[in-house]
Amino acid sequence: MHAYRSHTCAALTAANAGETVRLSGWVHRVRDHGGVLFIDLRDHYGITQVLCDGDSAAFKELEKVRAEWVIRIDGTVKLRDASLVNAKIPTGEIEVYVREVEVLGAVDGELPLPVFGDQDYPEETRLTYRFLDLRRDSLHNKMMLRSNVVRSIRNRMWDIGFNEYQTPIITASSPEGARDFLVPSRLHPGRFYALPQAPQQFKQLIMVAGFDRYFQIAPCFRDEDPRADRSPTDFYQLDLEMSFVSQEDVFAAVQPVIQGLFEEFGNGKTVDPDWPLIPYAESLLKYGSDKPDLRNPIEMQIVSEHFAGSGFAIFAKLLEQEGTEIRAIPAPTGGSRKFCDRMNAFAQSQGLPGMGYIFWRKGDNGEMEAAGPLAKNIGPERTEAIRLQLGLGEGDAAFFLGGKPEAFEAIAGRARNEIGKELGLTEEGVFKFAWIVDFPMYEKDDEGKIDFSHNPFSMPQGGLEALSGDPLKVLGYQYDLACNGYELVSGAIRNHKLEIMYKAFELAGYPASEVEKRFGGMVKAFKYGAPPHGGCAAGIDRIVMLLADEINIREVIMFPMNQRAEDLMMGAPSEPTNEQMRELRLRALPKEA
Amino acid sequence: MHAYRSHTCAALTAANAGETVRLSGWVHRVRDHGGVLFIDLRDHYGITQVLCDGDSAAFKELEKVRAEWVIRIDGTVKLRDASLVNAKIPTGEIEVYVREVEVLGAVDGELPLPVFGDQDYPEETRLTYRFLDLRRDSLHNKMMLRSNVVRSIRNRMWDIGFNEYQTPIITASSPEGARDFLVPSRLHPGRFYALPQAPQQFKQLIMVAGFDRYFQIAPCFRDEDPRADRSPTDFYQLDLEMSFVSQEDVFAAVQPVIQGLFEEFGNGKTVDPDWPLIPYAESLLKYGSDKPDLRNPIEMQIVSEHFAGSGFAIFAKLLEQEGTEIRAIPAPTGGSRKFCDRMNAFAQSQGLPGMGYIFWRKGDNGEMEAAGPLAKNIGPERTEAIRLQLGLGEGDAAFFLGGKPEAFEAIAGRARNEIGKELGLTEEGVFKFAWIVDFPMYEKDDEGKIDFSHNPFSMPQGGLEALSGDPLKVLGYQYDLACNGYELVSGAIRNHKLEIMYKAFELAGYPASEVEKRFGGMVKAFKYGAPPHGGCAAGIDRIVMLLADEINIREVIMFPMNQRAEDLMMGAPSEPTNEQMRELRLRALPKEA
Repeated sequence: MHAYRSHTCAALTAANAGETVRLSGWVHRVRDHGGVLFIDLRDHYGITQVLCDGDSAAFKELEKVRAEWVIRIDGTVKLRDASLVNAKIPTGEIEVYVREVEVLGAVDGELPLPVFGDQDYPEETRLTYRFLDLRRDSLHNKMMLRSNVVRSIRNRMWDIGFNEYQTPIITASSPEGARDFLVPSRLHPGRFYALPQAPQQFKQLIMVAGFDRYFQIAPCFRDEDPRADRSPTDFYQLDLEMSFVSQEDVFAAVQPVIQGLFEEFGNGKTVDPDWPLIPYAESLLKYGSDKPDLRNPIEMQIVSEHFAGSGFAIFAKLLEQEGTEIRAIPAPTGGSRKFCDRMNAFAQSQGLPGMGYIFWRKGDNGEMEAAGPLAKNIGPERTEAIRLQLGLGEGDAAFFLGGKPEAFEAIAGRARNEIGKELGLTEEGVFKFAWIVDFPMYEKDDEGKIDFSHNPFSMPQGGLEALSGDPLKVLGYQYDLACNGYELVSGAIRNHKLEIMYKAFELAGYPASEVEKRFGGMVKAFKYGAPPHGGCAAGIDRIVMLLADEINIREVIMFPMNQRAEDLMMGAPSEPTNEQMRELRLRALPKEA
Repeated sequence: MHAYRSHTCAALTAANAGETVRLSGWVHRVRDHGGVLFIDLRDHYGITQVLCDGDSAAFKELEKVRAEWVIRIDGTVKLRDASLVNAKIPTGEIEVYVREVEVLGAVDGELPLPVFGDQDYPEETRLTYRFLDLRRDSLHNKMMLRSNVVRSIRNRMWDIGFNEYQTPIITASSPEGARDFLVPSRLHPGRFYALPQAPQQFKQLIMVAGFDRYFQIAPCFRDEDPRADRSPTDFYQLDLEMSFVSQEDVFAAVQPVIQGLFEEFGNGKTVDPDWPLIPYAESLLKYGSDKPDLRNPIEMQIVSEHFAGSGFAIFAKLLEQEGTEIRAIPAPTGGSRKFCDRMNAFAQSQGLPGMGYIFWRKGDNGEMEAAGPLAKNIGPERTEAIRLQLGLGEGDAAFFLGGKPEAFEAIAGRARNEIGKELGLTEEGVFKFAWIVDFPMYEKDDEGKIDFSHNPFSMPQGGLEALSGDPLKVLGYQYDLACNGYELVSGAIRNHKLEIMYKAFELAGYPASEVEKRFGGMVKAFKYGAPPHGGCAAGIDRIVMLLADEINIREVIMFPMNQRAEDLMMGAPSEPTNEQMRELRLRALPKEA
């Protein structure tokens, strides 16, 4: 017989009754029913109930074992009494009477974290004893989900003709946006490698090298400042790139992969097959976000005309300033003062002075009437015009925000989410996707300087010609995929023409010499026959989080860092040895300096 | 029609004759046949011949294009004359008459490296312009081979119930053997992360965490000193681990994967399905190596008894010293003085004073006679006894090496290879595998100190008891897989019992405190119920090299470093900015200090 097991802990059924079997696993739970020991024996695959009484030679040894000991047992499979069958587990019809036991791995001392049971523990404890936390069902299942998701992604990519190539992890520093992790070179003292923020340049070089459809489940490294919902060191993305494609080709390749994935692992949730293309500007206007949650049917509208010159002085005055507008958030079924006040308070909690509102109720005369301070200020005619524009009626409400859109847009978006949720308008149990397209190439930074708003390697729409006008009006072939309010994918058709690239960088204040210095490898490559190409990257952690309905990224990573970028289990980062520092020819400066 | 192509450059056949098509690709070659331009248009998939004459509106534009320009053409598919059909390529029956052409990506200046043709270029040029070199058939095919090999490995591992989990890349320094790459922490100045030399500890922790069969195509990082046949920074391995297994279970899991892989991609070579288990000591004795090339049928033997007290004083004296022996390398069909002298010269080129030999030829009287200086010295009786032991006859030879085995064993192994090759004994066109088992746990280092010879985490055979005797006699459950003279896989059943681990480290001179300091995470984990487990790792680069019949590792990596650990294309490593050094609170020391 095998040294450790004839079956896994999920394998035995009534069909095995009478057989002599060998099982190995962890002691999930011990119950002593007056001289009869019941043990739930657990392995990767499942749980089998084993038992023992004083008649067995194994009894004395089995009495010693405690939770989370690893044991091997030999015994006989017995049918359970009908009343004791546990239909919830595949082995629920049987139990194994133990005749021999061997302790394979004992527990030394108290468990810092029990595996059985659902008791909550502080995250620091859970991360320090990750190997125990991972034994719990919940985390075990999430890791299996992640593993299966990655497997399914690979299969789906292969099925549509993509090939997987590995790109370097020890490579050149590339000032693309975030902060690089550096790796000192021992052979070249004073010089450093960097870990890639993404394989962006390499995948483009793979296209220039004549390969057609690349993908990789790629680790990406960014030295980020701590934030709750992201890993402070690294993350994985499904990275892909295609040659000889337009934006539509990328969408056509990606949609079946992601849609199929969400159908496969969505746990019964519906996946809406309609993936609208929404221009960036429209998305901001309608949803207050470039990653709209389309489960929420609310669409905002511009209602400036109804407030211009109206009796509501705040808005009327505001509209006299350039670049301002008034937007309405319609709130069907939100027509009560109580609800409107609550949403007004929400806006205040987000840093706005408040949101004006109007709601429509049944008046004392049985007719619909508009209520709320705004309605009084602007009068019945304008109020009615607003109602008609928004398509609202009795029992509904609308909220109003004004000013420069960039100042209130994001809060309007959050208010829209809140209203949708509060009113039960946001559909549950469904994944709704949208491609957000036509991102602007440039934006003004805090100092009023023109800079790239997204990815400097994207192809501007209209090519070289478009770059001779107002940079802020230039749109890029850049796109995101939004799902239920999250950004899942981001990508672009790349700028593969050197003259356009130089011009694009020039507009952002980078002379050609700087482009060559920063992106020398790519500039060199584009001189020797570059194909049109484009692609995107999808966040693996984010996909698994969505599928697992989980908001903590550390719940979908096997061995995550804590939020201070420390590995509590392995003790990283740690002090280097003097010899290591000597070999690298580095000195650490004192903290105070 | 699609913006770039209706078909790939490998898609058109006679069935498409008459169709209007659109193709995009690189200009592989241009030929001007007196007013008719022939262009081989190349993409990832293949080559299509397109042509154009003065009657076409595209002629003037097409005349301008040069090798490696990227173009898009529209044209009509025509059948070639029967005499012009090229049966070697799928599109060889047709050509495309070009009516319209668009330049998608021109070449600026001279190509530093032509794509068409087989001309050799210095490796520095090839690495600097890797994106051009990769367009060549040979490298393109090797990258596709690698991609397909990795895909096949993943599928094979999934098929036998392994799950893929990603382990951290930014992690703790772990003094396991080679030198770590360090990553300075910005958030914790003065402290460093390390890149993993292998996911060894993590995969063991995954087993302790209750998962059963793990694999990963894992990047591994070692700051190695330059050597021609390895990457100076990183490499990939198929890393796997299993719980509740013995050595045989690992072999049973791995053999079908590797064997199937070699059958799939062996390019017609046979894969011997017999994978013998050869103890380490026997392998060194018979083959002079722990990674024997079994295509070579030669097996060395100990022949000390025939030389002890013999007339060959050098060996006779040698044998009086402790720990010495004489070994013979039989060389069937090597029975000529010329061959024996050449092999003797080979031994001298390897640093030995020479190899004694005997060969058997037809004597003047028509009978077999033994020749060579050794035969004379030891006399006919001993010579005949040697011949009988080695099973040799007329036309054969034998070579002899003596001393302490560790001093000549490796050279004996190389001589065996040389002899096998020279005599044509080494079988071509076949992959022969063997598991090398029973590695010693310990060895004496250069200073005579006992140290781990292989992997400190391996389970010693005989457990705790075995560790109370002579450490040099302790064998481990450690194994390698050899293939055609290369080490392809290395692994072990792990030491999952803390008391045995402490004792094993103690023998190598590490007190418990040191073990806890160095391997704290794992020690902690083994306290809380560790299962028996084991696994191995297979070198991906090495596998692809064997399958591609390639000895240069840089030929099977998409973007390799050069041998000085520099990325010539991207310019790594490079000088950090002052700001980067300030953020990391590091100072580089001058080179002289």
